[in-house]
Amino acid sequence: MTTATAMNMDEMLTEMGKRARTASRALAVLPPAVKNAALEAMAAAFESHRAEIRAENAKDVAGAEEHGLTKAAVDRLRLDDKRILAMAGALRELIALPDPVGEIENVRTRPNGLRIGHMRSPIGVVGIIYESRPNVTADAGALCLKSGNAAILRGGSEAFHSNRILARLMNDAAAGAGAPDGAIQLIQTTDREAVGALLRADQYVDVIIPRGGKPLIERVTRDSIIPVIKHLDGNCTVYVDETANLDDAVRITVNSKTQRTGVCNAAETLLVHRNIADEFLPRIGKALQEKGVEIRGDASVMELVPGSVAATEQDWYEEYLDLIIAAKVVDSYEEAVEFINHYGSHHTETIVTNDHKRAMHFLRAIDSACVHINASTRFSDGGEYGLGAEIGISTNKLHARGPMGLRELTTAKWIVFGEGQVRE
Amino acid sequence: MTTATAMNMDEMLTEMGKRARTASRALAVLPPAVKNAALEAMAAAFESHRAEIRAENAKDVAGAEEHGLTKAAVDRLRLDDKRILAMAGALRELIALPDPVGEIENVRTRPNGLRIGHMRSPIGVVGIIYESRPNVTADAGALCLKSGNAAILRGGSEAFHSNRILARLMNDAAAGAGAPDGAIQLIQTTDREAVGALLRADQYVDVIIPRGGKPLIERVTRDSIIPVIKHLDGNCTVYVDETANLDDAVRITVNSKTQRTGVCNAAETLLVHRNIADEFLPRIGKALQEKGVEIRGDASVMELVPGSVAATEQDWYEEYLDLIIAAKVVDSYEEAVEFINHYGSHHTETIVTNDHKRAMHFLRAIDSACVHINASTRFSDGGEYGLGAEIGISTNKLHARGPMGLRELTTAKWIVFGEGQVRE
Repeated sequence: MTTATAMNMDEMLTEMGKRARTASRALAVLPPAVKNAALEAMAAAFESHRAEIRAENAKDVAGAEEHGLTKAAVDRLRLDDKRILAMAGALRELIALPDPVGEIENVRTRPNGLRIGHMRSPIGVVGIIYESRPNVTADAGALCLKSGNAAILRGGSEAFHSNRILARLMNDAAAGAGAPDGAIQLIQTTDREAVGALLRADQYVDVIIPRGGKPLIERVTRDSIIPVIKHLDGNCTVYVDETANLDDAVRITVNSKTQRTGVCNAAETLLVHRNIADEFLPRIGKALQEKGVEIRGDASVMELVPGSVAATEQDWYEEYLDLIIAAKVVDSYEEAVEFINHYGSHHTETIVTNDHKRAMHFLRAIDSACVHINASTRFSDGGEYGLGAEIGISTNKLHARGPMGLRELTTAKWIVFGEGQVRE
Repeated sequence: MTTATAMNMDEMLTEMGKRARTASRALAVLPPAVKNAALEAMAAAFESHRAEIRAENAKDVAGAEEHGLTKAAVDRLRLDDKRILAMAGALRELIALPDPVGEIENVRTRPNGLRIGHMRSPIGVVGIIYESRPNVTADAGALCLKSGNAAILRGGSEAFHSNRILARLMNDAAAGAGAPDGAIQLIQTTDREAVGALLRADQYVDVIIPRGGKPLIERVTRDSIIPVIKHLDGNCTVYVDETANLDDAVRITVNSKTQRTGVCNAAETLLVHRNIADEFLPRIGKALQEKGVEIRGDASVMELVPGSVAATEQDWYEEYLDLIIAAKVVDSYEEAVEFINHYGSHHTETIVTNDHKRAMHFLRAIDSACVHINASTRFSDGGEYGLGAEIGISTNKLHARGPMGLRELTTAKWIVFGEGQVRE
């Protein structure tokens, strides 16, 4: 029975994959104006079909309440007029962004007269597997379309009806505006076998982007034979150097830890140089505690911060996503770098310093997707980096690290302009 | 017994991986002058240890002859003084190339004053699995060092003694010049289990680059849990458009097919627009046949080229690596594009045309790593593209497509220059 389902799912994904591949060929050469018209048509469709979207969404909300989902989870699922208009607004913001496809870079002339460079081009077919919030259907589908990629979307079963209406409206609107049919396809079943079939469809799908909790990402990484762009933990660190402006250091640490806690770019670890520990630690301890943060420290921290508790080895690895921070005193800048590269998750780190050489060295020495100087870790985000929109934050080292926008949904091909040259 | 070996191999690779990871941290911040001094020291070591290298190589050559390897295979293995000096020369050429590490790109200023951009940084630890020719040990190790990566090399068993002496000389010379110990490590066993262990060492190895025949690449792709940069077939196509300069078209086709046949950037397929088929096909048929090329054609080609034979469906997919070409007449430019994207291997294609719009459209529409206009397919090569040296030709879509040089052995991290900014 399972085998039969798996086979049916493989057949279904093969059909969807072929349709996506065909659409991707047309998308690769689609003029920017047509892609933007498609985005506008999608936004208009969301606006004019608000009642229909709400009605489909209500089925998901009722199901979620019936299945006993938490109030927060049900709330994330809900689409009211305000949220539908926000989704439409996000699509319109994409229209204003530059189209990365076809951009030509680094062209140089060779001694034989050949002009050789790179052209940004779409990846092809992008598979996106996500959970819960139905606005990902709109965001991810639209980002793929604008970057010239066909999308195969697989949303969470709890948002099934919402995702289905959104994907249908988007695909119909896009096709009406001149985009190829099949540019945005949704897997129309809640059968879990469909995910397995998607992860096996390497002839038709070029990359898989999972968006969701750790179990989802681990399953996808394990089962996929297609390259996966992962979005894993953020155990982010603030390092306060001996030369730091301590007012800046307090503001940056408090902001990195508390501006929002349940997110991957919140700070989870604080390192302080021994030469300023006596002055800085009591100040930052008080400031964090006033915001309700629990401080887990090494012996030096416990001595200087009343109310702090002892950190265990495990604390240095932890992504709390909560009002907790692990804090440690280091004897040198070098120790801080080694500590971060060893215990950190290679997501986002910041140094607070006035030492120029050290700041520039930190950029090279830290093996993380995002390395900041004198700025909150909370800035490592597509919107804050000016990408306009992001499909996720990659913790991969290859292809794209950190926030991924439209450009990161493209790849570079080599292009050669010749005048009849042949090789001697 | 197999299990015990596998366990020992996993332990061995864990040790090598830890050493490589430590070395990679130092390599990431090593000044260009030190890396270049290391390359010079390696080149000098090859020169001064020629007798020792020849003696070790003689063991491999004797073994290969004993095992009945073909004369060509034994010749590829052999290291005489000329080849040793050529290896040293290749290392010295790397010294002159710009160091990609630490290059800062695309910095823009955000409204809040943050300056945000990208910095090129090493990938980390690169695993390279290759066959036969021992000069790959020198090339691959040196490219990794110059790009700030630690290398774990696994050469073919037939070159075991040669690879071992080369790797030892390189690592010692590099360490003597100030590079970290363990920058270039060779797996010192011919046990096949070691490859499996390398492909499982995802905690310590960031990317695997296989260089060799299809069976090797397929095995690596199947077994690796580490991202693989593949180098697969080249079924390259020359498309002669109706507006082509036919003299150029003859020269480019003959050069693409015959300048060298056993290589992945040789042409295997020829498409000809119907409007010029009557004039062009008899000419190119004669020119190719004079070079000894067998022409396998569709009905139109068979009619216009005496001596051509019928192509089967399989011929359109074939990478002959021989004096054979598949040839077909297409009714339109669009048919040519569709044909190439369907039957080609997405490696290198060229259009011969004088139609500017079509030429520019071809660049976007063809889903291949290298897309040429009016130039031989044989140019898609790191040396010809001006990379100075290449670690391989990627047929991946993510990270790097086509010839990979020093820059393609790096990745980009986000960097942020702040002045105390926090997020509102």
